[in-house]
Amino acid sequence: MSEDYRSMWTELGLDLEAHDALLGVLGQAYQDIYLAQKDRPEGMGYFDFVMSEVHGLRIKELLDEKTAGRKIVGSYCVFVPEEIVLAANATLVGLCSGADFATEDVERLLPRNTCALIKSAFGFKLGKVCPYLESADMIVGENTCDGKKKAYESLAGLVDNLYVMDLPQVKHENGRALLKAEYNRFKDAMESLTGVSITADSLKQAIRTVNAKRAALHRLSALRKADPAPISGLDALLANQVFFYDNPTRFTDSVNKICDELEKRIEAEQGVFPEKTPRVLVAGCPQAVPNWKLPMIVETTGAVIVGEESCVGERGTRNLTDESGETVEAMLDAIVDRYFKVDCAIFTPNPDRLDHIQQMVADYRADGVIHYGLQFCQPYLMESIPVEKALEEAQIPCLRLETDYSMEDVGQLKTRVEAFVELLK
Amino acid sequence: MSEDYRSMWTELGLDLEAHDALLGVLGQAYQDIYLAQKDRPEGMGYFDFVMSEVHGLRIKELLDEKTAGRKIVGSYCVFVPEEIVLAANATLVGLCSGADFATEDVERLLPRNTCALIKSAFGFKLGKVCPYLESADMIVGENTCDGKKKAYESLAGLVDNLYVMDLPQVKHENGRALLKAEYNRFKDAMESLTGVSITADSLKQAIRTVNAKRAALHRLSALRKADPAPISGLDALLANQVFFYDNPTRFTDSVNKICDELEKRIEAEQGVFPEKTPRVLVAGCPQAVPNWKLPMIVETTGAVIVGEESCVGERGTRNLTDESGETVEAMLDAIVDRYFKVDCAIFTPNPDRLDHIQQMVADYRADGVIHYGLQFCQPYLMESIPVEKALEEAQIPCLRLETDYSMEDVGQLKTRVEAFVELLK
Repeated sequence: MSEDYRSMWTELGLDLEAHDALLGVLGQAYQDIYLAQKDRPEGMGYFDFVMSEVHGLRIKELLDEKTAGRKIVGSYCVFVPEEIVLAANATLVGLCSGADFATEDVERLLPRNTCALIKSAFGFKLGKVCPYLESADMIVGENTCDGKKKAYESLAGLVDNLYVMDLPQVKHENGRALLKAEYNRFKDAMESLTGVSITADSLKQAIRTVNAKRAALHRLSALRKADPAPISGLDALLANQVFFYDNPTRFTDSVNKICDELEKRIEAEQGVFPEKTPRVLVAGCPQAVPNWKLPMIVETTGAVIVGEESCVGERGTRNLTDESGETVEAMLDAIVDRYFKVDCAIFTPNPDRLDHIQQMVADYRADGVIHYGLQFCQPYLMESIPVEKALEEAQIPCLRLETDYSMEDVGQLKTRVEAFVELLK
Repeated sequence: MSEDYRSMWTELGLDLEAHDALLGVLGQAYQDIYLAQKDRPEGMGYFDFVMSEVHGLRIKELLDEKTAGRKIVGSYCVFVPEEIVLAANATLVGLCSGADFATEDVERLLPRNTCALIKSAFGFKLGKVCPYLESADMIVGENTCDGKKKAYESLAGLVDNLYVMDLPQVKHENGRALLKAEYNRFKDAMESLTGVSITADSLKQAIRTVNAKRAALHRLSALRKADPAPISGLDALLANQVFFYDNPTRFTDSVNKICDELEKRIEAEQGVFPEKTPRVLVAGCPQAVPNWKLPMIVETTGAVIVGEESCVGERGTRNLTDESGETVEAMLDAIVDRYFKVDCAIFTPNPDRLDHIQQMVADYRADGVIHYGLQFCQPYLMESIPVEKALEEAQIPCLRLETDYSMEDVGQLKTRVEAFVELLK
């Protein structure tokens, strides 16, 4: 990245030395994990560029938007509706949470037995290495799991403008009413942040923009049904990760360009792995940048990942928001409907998720499922047991893994994944 | 216990061999921990009897009630309103969850990293050793923490009649509305279970009965302000534990009898520990029978426990339900108001709890606070950090402990408690 960014980072209050170290590790990991892959689609060049500029050009763009009077909103969860943010003329970005940082400082504020994702979010703040967080005019937390819900109470003391959204736990009428009330409250908060009133026109445009992003990923996902797989799971995961950061329209165009290329590959029966390579669906906890540990292990072990049942994947993007409403109220209702379908493990019961995983196995012709659980993530670890049971009953092989962001267990995980992949052959 | 009970236990489907083993361990622990104490109030004889008959006479009473057409409702949480259960002519009992049992079987249904309380509830079911659970016509779960919320999904497959109550996470208007809707739904469920319609008279009587139980414990708590302490923390905890099991009116009378006796002790300046013994408030997770590990350690280490900020303690019992309403609706509103005040760590934010702990320190003249956290209990472990911070700011010594139901860490805990008690002298 250009030297020009150093003054930008300094102005944002980053710890330059720590940030340099982070970028060094990130760059090396990207080199080792991503650039070392063979036969990548040319269109991935765009994402390579995005990643090489993830704390540079994209931050500069956000700061330029701020200079032009636009507000930046940061979030940690797919329940924060980008449609409402965009309609109020603000930009939504996912916040850093995929790597350990400043762990000692973090564990003064959070119990050691807290999931890596939450610790990471705190680590990036305490270590002063997340330019997205420092650029944001508002941080939106949400009452999903106990870990995040209670952690936001401490985060409130670390950031300037934390807004916490309540969420239902049950998909009954009262739950939907709560979500609707909370999305209405969020709309008011966005309007108050930006000074821009959301209109039917702006909301419709925002819904279309976000749906287009999702539709591009749906197209990408559908192309992964092919055997040989035209794109690696690592590359597809990266597209799902960049979904949270990038300019929405440019993201959509870039994914569609890759899809054009993949269609040609499929026609030519060309793949990134040989035909009949064991096909794995990864289900469970989100994998945020730069948490590429599991797909790296799987795809260097003779298997290919053909789908992600995850917030950074199909759970986050599968449903479109109905665009047909003509009033703000009708469209807000459609937004509530869309997000209320998200089958996060925070809901009880959550049978849709078990069905969806099996549907994905069928759709993407997966040979087996790896359930990816972050250590101490109670909702997904709890739910991994009924998931495994449902898959066993359907005679679909399942491997339940529990891990964190450290590299200490890579050898052990690799051994278990190897044994599982052997089973799928 | 009398041999007569064996046929009762067999009919309930208990595993007699495992149950004998459990009662053996329980009896020995009671002997070693409770009966070994000196200068206990004579009134504790009642609780000794209750404990000696905990799976015997009390179960026979419940089964006699069932024969007479009354229904038994089991619960795991202070959010299940006993007022509504009693008003529908049913009996509420707390279910077994204070000891490890059948751990290997449990860990096939729940992740290893689940708190001991939840694992215990499953262990008592899978090991077939909880006659309360087997006597119950309905089990009421509740969406408190992630662990319980998701565990009930699995428990539903193990018990016949599981009813799950949703709960709010935030104390705003929507949260109160949810609690009210859920308590109304619970009222309907109780009426449907018993075939008895709740009337203004029956509800008023039920509120009075439950308030009387609470008031008796308030009286007991107030007497613990005295120095020397007229009753041990172990004995007071036992009264708080039996609160969940016993016949309500008999419980109230028995606690009041102890209070009469303690008043005389206080007048005579007679205590169970010498004057100026360091006084400890225990705050945090509930301690269910027979989880007496921490008070046993504290009170054999030269300190006395003068209060429990816990669901099995003042958090569970501190507020009375307003009795003045004249209609079912008005009284249900009063019940909602009363339970909505419970400052469980599942709420976010939860500043009342920090205030209440400090208030208890002042009221009971505690020299320090031990925060008791069950390992993997995210809400209380997360909140223990701000609790400690608030206490530090108020210059109140605080020791944060994290443990489970095993005896493996007793030595280590004792060392830490000893050092803490030294500090309080």
